[in-house]
Amino acid sequence: MRMYSLFIGLLLSLVCGLAGAQGTATWIWSPGDFEIWLSNRMQAQRVERDVAWPPFWRLYNHQPQVNFIRQVDLAAPEDIDIAVEGIHNVAIDGRFVHGDQRHVRVPAGKHTLNLQVYNAASPPAVFVQGRTIRSDASWSVGPRPGAPTAHAAHWNLAAPDTPPSGYRLPTREIPAVAVTRAEGAILVDFGRETTGFVKLKNLAGSGKIALYYGESKEEALSVEGAETLDRFTLADHRGDFVAPTSRAMRYVNIRFDGGIHIDDVALLYEYLPVAHRGTFKSSDDELNRIWDVAQRTLELNTREFFIDGVKRDHWVWSGDAVQTYLMNYYTFFDSDSVKRTTWALRGADPVDMHINTILDYSLYWFIGIRDYYQYTGDADFVKSVYPRMTTLMDFVLARRNANGMLEGLPGDWVFVDWADMPKDGELAVIQLLFARSLEAMADCAALAHDDAKAATYRQLAADLKAKIMAAFWDPRRQVFIHGRKDGRIDPLVTRHPNMFALMFGYLDDAQAAAVRRNVLTSDTVPKITTPYMRFYELAALAESGQQRYVTGQIKDYWGGMLRAGATCFWEQYDPKVEGVARYAMYGKPFGMSLCHAWGASPLYLLGKYYLGVKPTQPGYAAYVVEPDLGGLAWIDGKVPTPHGDIAVYADAKTIRVTPVAGQGVLRFTSASAPRSDGGTIRRIGERRYELALEGGKAVTVARTK
Amino acid sequence: MRMYSLFIGLLLSLVCGLAGAQGTATWIWSPGDFEIWLSNRMQAQRVERDVAWPPFWRLYNHQPQVNFIRQVDLAAPEDIDIAVEGIHNVAIDGRFVHGDQRHVRVPAGKHTLNLQVYNAASPPAVFVQGRTIRSDASWSVGPRPGAPTAHAAHWNLAAPDTPPSGYRLPTREIPAVAVTRAEGAILVDFGRETTGFVKLKNLAGSGKIALYYGESKEEALSVEGAETLDRFTLADHRGDFVAPTSRAMRYVNIRFDGGIHIDDVALLYEYLPVAHRGTFKSSDDELNRIWDVAQRTLELNTREFFIDGVKRDHWVWSGDAVQTYLMNYYTFFDSDSVKRTTWALRGADPVDMHINTILDYSLYWFIGIRDYYQYTGDADFVKSVYPRMTTLMDFVLARRNANGMLEGLPGDWVFVDWADMPKDGELAVIQLLFARSLEAMADCAALAHDDAKAATYRQLAADLKAKIMAAFWDPRRQVFIHGRKDGRIDPLVTRHPNMFALMFGYLDDAQAAAVRRNVLTSDTVPKITTPYMRFYELAALAESGQQRYVTGQIKDYWGGMLRAGATCFWEQYDPKVEGVARYAMYGKPFGMSLCHAWGASPLYLLGKYYLGVKPTQPGYAAYVVEPDLGGLAWIDGKVPTPHGDIAVYADAKTIRVTPVAGQGVLRFTSASAPRSDGGTIRRIGERRYELALEGGKAVTVARTK
Repeated sequence: MRMYSLFIGLLLSLVCGLAGAQGTATWIWSPGDFEIWLSNRMQAQRVERDVAWPPFWRLYNHQPQVNFIRQVDLAAPEDIDIAVEGIHNVAIDGRFVHGDQRHVRVPAGKHTLNLQVYNAASPPAVFVQGRTIRSDASWSVGPRPGAPTAHAAHWNLAAPDTPPSGYRLPTREIPAVAVTRAEGAILVDFGRETTGFVKLKNLAGSGKIALYYGESKEEALSVEGAETLDRFTLADHRGDFVAPTSRAMRYVNIRFDGGIHIDDVALLYEYLPVAHRGTFKSSDDELNRIWDVAQRTLELNTREFFIDGVKRDHWVWSGDAVQTYLMNYYTFFDSDSVKRTTWALRGADPVDMHINTILDYSLYWFIGIRDYYQYTGDADFVKSVYPRMTTLMDFVLARRNANGMLEGLPGDWVFVDWADMPKDGELAVIQLLFARSLEAMADCAALAHDDAKAATYRQLAADLKAKIMAAFWDPRRQVFIHGRKDGRIDPLVTRHPNMFALMFGYLDDAQAAAVRRNVLTSDTVPKITTPYMRFYELAALAESGQQRYVTGQIKDYWGGMLRAGATCFWEQYDPKVEGVARYAMYGKPFGMSLCHAWGASPLYLLGKYYLGVKPTQPGYAAYVVEPDLGGLAWIDGKVPTPHGDIAVYADAKTIRVTPVAGQGVLRFTSASAPRSDGGTIRRIGERRYELALEGGKAVTVARTK
Repeated sequence: MRMYSLFIGLLLSLVCGLAGAQGTATWIWSPGDFEIWLSNRMQAQRVERDVAWPPFWRLYNHQPQVNFIRQVDLAAPEDIDIAVEGIHNVAIDGRFVHGDQRHVRVPAGKHTLNLQVYNAASPPAVFVQGRTIRSDASWSVGPRPGAPTAHAAHWNLAAPDTPPSGYRLPTREIPAVAVTRAEGAILVDFGRETTGFVKLKNLAGSGKIALYYGESKEEALSVEGAETLDRFTLADHRGDFVAPTSRAMRYVNIRFDGGIHIDDVALLYEYLPVAHRGTFKSSDDELNRIWDVAQRTLELNTREFFIDGVKRDHWVWSGDAVQTYLMNYYTFFDSDSVKRTTWALRGADPVDMHINTILDYSLYWFIGIRDYYQYTGDADFVKSVYPRMTTLMDFVLARRNANGMLEGLPGDWVFVDWADMPKDGELAVIQLLFARSLEAMADCAALAHDDAKAATYRQLAADLKAKIMAAFWDPRRQVFIHGRKDGRIDPLVTRHPNMFALMFGYLDDAQAAAVRRNVLTSDTVPKITTPYMRFYELAALAESGQQRYVTGQIKDYWGGMLRAGATCFWEQYDPKVEGVARYAMYGKPFGMSLCHAWGASPLYLLGKYYLGVKPTQPGYAAYVVEPDLGGLAWIDGKVPTPHGDIAVYADAKTIRVTPVAGQGVLRFTSASAPRSDGGTIRRIGERRYELALEGGKAVTVARTK
């Protein structure tokens, strides 16, 4: 069985390799163009009841003209078929091809192909299919003929007759779980949070129909309060009627005129196909349900892009997205979704406002790219997006104050969290994110062979970190204080800077212990009430080995949502608020999102800090498996990597790991000398052991607790 | 009559004033957006026979989202009707308007209206019509709600049901002048160069039709050589057939299958409506015909934008356009066309290549804006475009060499002229254009109240001019030499730097006389063979009073084209080339454009240097009228200004001027003491006199030669 898996793996990798070199053709475009265009289309669909509400930040457009360039060296003449979105011409070695521009013969020998494509309305894109010449990542793009400046981008859109502008998420029909009828009204329950196009089956008659969508039953029944709704007027309709816009809901309240008859209601569930690679089971059923609901939450928010929530915004928010990336690495490992989202968030140049207008969201964007590289090892993407990293960082650097720090300037939104706390002046948490961004820039500059900038960013980061410690670390109280305004220190302590400093590894052991003691596990520091910031809080705690405490926190907080009836995790949760009041936010009775991506963080916490799998070199070239039961009797799951899934089982006496290629290391604790059925166990400290893993070779360790 | 005209003028100005404040509504957009989008659409229509050929330079796109913002202060509630291109919402004081978003009631009092509009495919635009609230230049635009960053732009598109993306030039039907029929063929002569949609009247039958367009009969008859053609296949067609694309032609050669019958052929002449304000007549009939044909040439090339030529490119080229602007000030005075063209040439940010890829064309662009301000006094436009002036100048400044000079870098096209001469290294003519551009930047920065930059540009210009004189002025030969490469002077003398230095006023009297003598009127310096550079050559000569010489040159060169059968003026004309060979260019038998905007320069020369009218303060706040007969017995014409047309008649004994508002001055020569029927004549030199003009008050001067 093991040999068989290895063989399949090898075969797949060869086939994929071939696919890259001369396999299936795919639509290609200039990097970022399709992503910008598609994210605009998706985000512009937001409504607030009957009002269209596109994002309020700067939107960019695609480039209206792109040249697609390929060097070829043909043993024999080759006929190529060309599909194009836009007006185009074909030139070989700088000379136009006359006649049929969609079926071109390329002569034998070395030649430069240039396809010049103009399209104002949607991204210029081409699909070229020949025997050896096929549009794929081996093509280049540039703003003028014959002068490539970047590699072409693609997303495996492999149907020549479905161009990128025609891209739609797939759908499949799902039935209602419960249908309640009354005079001129049908209330449908789909059983759990979902998203798609409501289908009214065999609708007959004329008149008005209104659909009131609800993530809760109360919302659907609130004709005046439902956040999303659709209204239609039908004339003598016969047959199925499908609402033209995809909406999020668990319930839909259908109100219709007397002249209308509806046989049944279903949903065309709209989804991005993703692989369910990551798994997690444990001895705790509640925790298992939390993991499942978190996975559902993430899946619903993984669409054209990683979105914040399925009901309300379905906008792409950087702070939210950067968390979903991390969750994704422990579930779907869908790299394409990270890349698309990164392009979409960034847009194009010139930069005149922060991503989503939010200062901290620009900073997260850099960090997300470094994370991506660490998990995937995809240096090509980093090189591709690096020019837009530098222009955004130029914008950020130009906004430093006299101290070299960032604070909110006119037009900036300093978000940090929904928590009620001062947000003006120099916030410690912002400077920490800034330092981390500069480190990310340094790493990415090095990857892009921009060594001079790499050194500059590295120095800026080091200088800033020194300033941060000097300004915000309170040596007497042994905590990070919240911030400084107009040169005056605010003695307020918040969890935010403390947990980021801990998580980023900016503290020595004594400082880390103090932060844990004085802030993170202290009841005197205000609690965090968004899953968004609980992500970092719990990650920081787990980072320093507090899994047992984290287990309790997860069961308490996420378990609390489940007990309150959640079928996905929420934008905000305060256990003290009960009943329908839980759904209120932004001054609106149903303003809160009940399926919010940042609610899914247990996926990341359980995968990284319980199964304990994390890359130590980019793309899992090296990795550790360091299982931690966190107080549970046993844990069992899989973590996806670029080389396949790592399976981990652990209980007090046994650890079993099926590793993948790469320099894997298993680290574990044991009260007495452990044994294994393969490899050599090395003692690395008090009760601590290490075992080198061999790709594809499962190993079982017997230990004592 | 005079009083009556004045009264009408006053009335018109009041009405127009009202129109600006609360008159007719117009579609509005973010400055540059519509112009970029429309110029892309127009330019992408270029074909080379059956090959689409959009421009080969960087094309930009419009912003996909714009907020339209207006502060109002209403005595009573007001209903407004809203038409929009795109998805939109309406907010009053930051709160969404729910319900009908196209008919909104604005409450009494002070409010901020915000219309957020998203449109990926064409520029976001709005049309708002209320009793006092109307979309016009009083609105602002910005990338985010409630934060205006610029004034809205418009072009008096006043029909709410015809949005900007639906804009089309008007057409009117004109008949053929001669129709020659043969079996399956019709050759049509429209009598002169024209442009539009060929209309095949009462076409019946099925089969193939091909249209071969020709600016010459030879081109139309050359099925293999015609630069433009269209092919159609019709099935059982009945009725008129109109070709879907506007083309330029004098002739069209229609070839069709036997199964097709065509009753007659006409043209839907496509044109931009312009006012024929400038006029010129003289005692020389040939010169009068030259003026008329030049006007026709300019008119055909004045379309959505000023284009280079009607047949081949109809692209927007900066060097060509900047000349047409000057011609336009002496004919149509169509300011909107200058503004549209300026936006279209510039595109958006960031800048990564020169306008049209041509180094000199970036420089002309700045100069054209300064010219525009001088003729129109429209400071609002300068302020509006100033941000894009600075970003282009940043690009230019970043490309200076160690000497602070410009030379062609990889990717740059150094055009200057089609003339065969060295174009690498530091060309004197490029540095002169650069200095002039910096002066233009300084002036425009001052208008935009960017005083710091104004001073910087002023200093850069002064420094550069000193360097130019030191490097390129040969004190021994008393000429500008052509250039310097790798620090080595090329002793070659070309007309180009000499004529620009003279025209820009960079020379003292002795140097100017030397340049005239040693270069401009010298047969030993290579002649100029493009009307493009003859524009500057003759302007430089006229600038220093050589009108009599210029008259001969115009009659010789432009008269030569007329004698060769021109109905518009050509891209290039070499009297030594005869017959069909004249039409060849770019290695193609009919590659040359026979209706090229830069061929129309006599319009400018005769208006500015013969009628002698030119603004001395921006917008003709002050101006001179300095008639020069240039060897002719009499001249008679009108020059348009923002305040109306200035009429000038002059012969050896009489000068008659009907001036407009503004500080006008008539300057003239007389052998003996002159007399006038108004004002006071002042002697200003040897045989030279001056008379202050009074707006609207015609004055006649009697003089002797």
